[in-house]
Amino acid sequence: MILDLIAFDADDTLWHNELLYQLTEEKYQNLLSRYADAQLVSKRLLDTERKNIDIYGYGIKSFTLSMIETAIEISSGDVTASEIFNIIGFAKEMLTSEVRLLDYAEDTVKNLAEAYHLMMITKGDLRDQEYKLARSGLAACFRFTEVVTEKDEQTYRDILAKYKVRPDRFLMVGNSIKSDILPILALGGHAVFVPYQVTWAHEVVSESKIDHSAYHELEHLGQLPGLIEQLTSS
Amino acid sequence: MILDLIAFDADDTLWHNELLYQLTEEKYQNLLSRYADAQLVSKRLLDTERKNIDIYGYGIKSFTLSMIETAIEISSGDVTASEIFNIIGFAKEMLTSEVRLLDYAEDTVKNLAEAYHLMMITKGDLRDQEYKLARSGLAACFRFTEVVTEKDEQTYRDILAKYKVRPDRFLMVGNSIKSDILPILALGGHAVFVPYQVTWAHEVVSESKIDHSAYHELEHLGQLPGLIEQLTSS
Repeated sequence: MILDLIAFDADDTLWHNELLYQLTEEKYQNLLSRYADAQLVSKRLLDTERKNIDIYGYGIKSFTLSMIETAIEISSGDVTASEIFNIIGFAKEMLTSEVRLLDYAEDTVKNLAEAYHLMMITKGDLRDQEYKLARSGLAACFRFTEVVTEKDEQTYRDILAKYKVRPDRFLMVGNSIKSDILPILALGGHAVFVPYQVTWAHEVVSESKIDHSAYHELEHLGQLPGLIEQLTSS
Repeated sequence: MILDLIAFDADDTLWHNELLYQLTEEKYQNLLSRYADAQLVSKRLLDTERKNIDIYGYGIKSFTLSMIETAIEISSGDVTASEIFNIIGFAKEMLTSEVRLLDYAEDTVKNLAEAYHLMMITKGDLRDQEYKLARSGLAACFRFTEVVTEKDEQTYRDILAKYKVRPDRFLMVGNSIKSDILPILALGGHAVFVPYQVTWAHEVVSESKIDHSAYHELEHLGQLPGLIEQLTSS
């Protein structure tokens, strides 16, 4: 088997992301504790996010606008300007926080970049993702970067067409079955699932076992070079 | 001369954009009129936007977060939750408002799409730009779309390399000298300036006349097909 392009999801595949949202959500729950208990705050925030996702899209700025909207609603308009100012502060902290790479991410990406063209394919906010890549120290390893609004079959089909890559010579690595694995398998590509410790509620799909010759599951990124060597030598 | 790719800026080149920001800013000034006069509100908002641009990037969500921050500061914390809720409402209105094409945009783009590969190259928020293209009715005319965080020489160089297009066979059309014209001329491409009625304060560059054989200036998009015919037949 020949591989022309290896693509990586970024958030929670190469670096921690969901954790940052969870830590922020805890601070947000504390900030609003005099209006509602933590569980209700989270439930209402998720409701607001779901309602807004079509017009806001993904990312920290969208999350922040939904936090502000939820704070106003859950406090029945009693939330203070100073509390809302704190929420804006959460956003700025998130947007500038240190990028914490996952175990093995650095070595694996640097190793593979010596032999393959690597691409980062990530969902979310363009500015935020580019800035995180710059801070990650891995930017030089990625020949191409694609930030997209949805990771569905059509998105990947467009990317492969644009770069003139055959699906059977394409391998995608990610932590989301829904976004990184199923669309790739449907297109005839190879997919490697590396689960993350936490999965965002929007991303959970049914846990049915995937039975497909082009599907692989690893415990961590450190196992990826070995898998790729094995695949390309057969 | 041969052209392999024609690219268009979108905001204020194909459709009205700055106008939407200005209408929103008027509503915002009215909303805050009991805290400060319109001029001061605008000045402080621009200060906040400039301070935040590096971490927020461009786009409506960034603008909205800066409106909220400015409202808190300019009111010394007296702004009410209900007023902030109004500001979030402005954002949702902007993000879902009708896309108003500029004069001649539709005919020109449809006409050129029959003979050329067209690309949209626009700065800003990924979700918002894709959604506007979908609403514009012009999506089918553009073979490629690139949403970028900055429109500088490096950005255009990367795009041309990615699509394997020679600069001297590339023509860019836009309303910003700084973002759409100067970087293209520096790379050896062709640039067509079509001024818009209003120019954002961030985009203003010195008004020195550009003297360059690959530079062209038109009054409106309706003149573009004629110019391209003239260029490609010489």
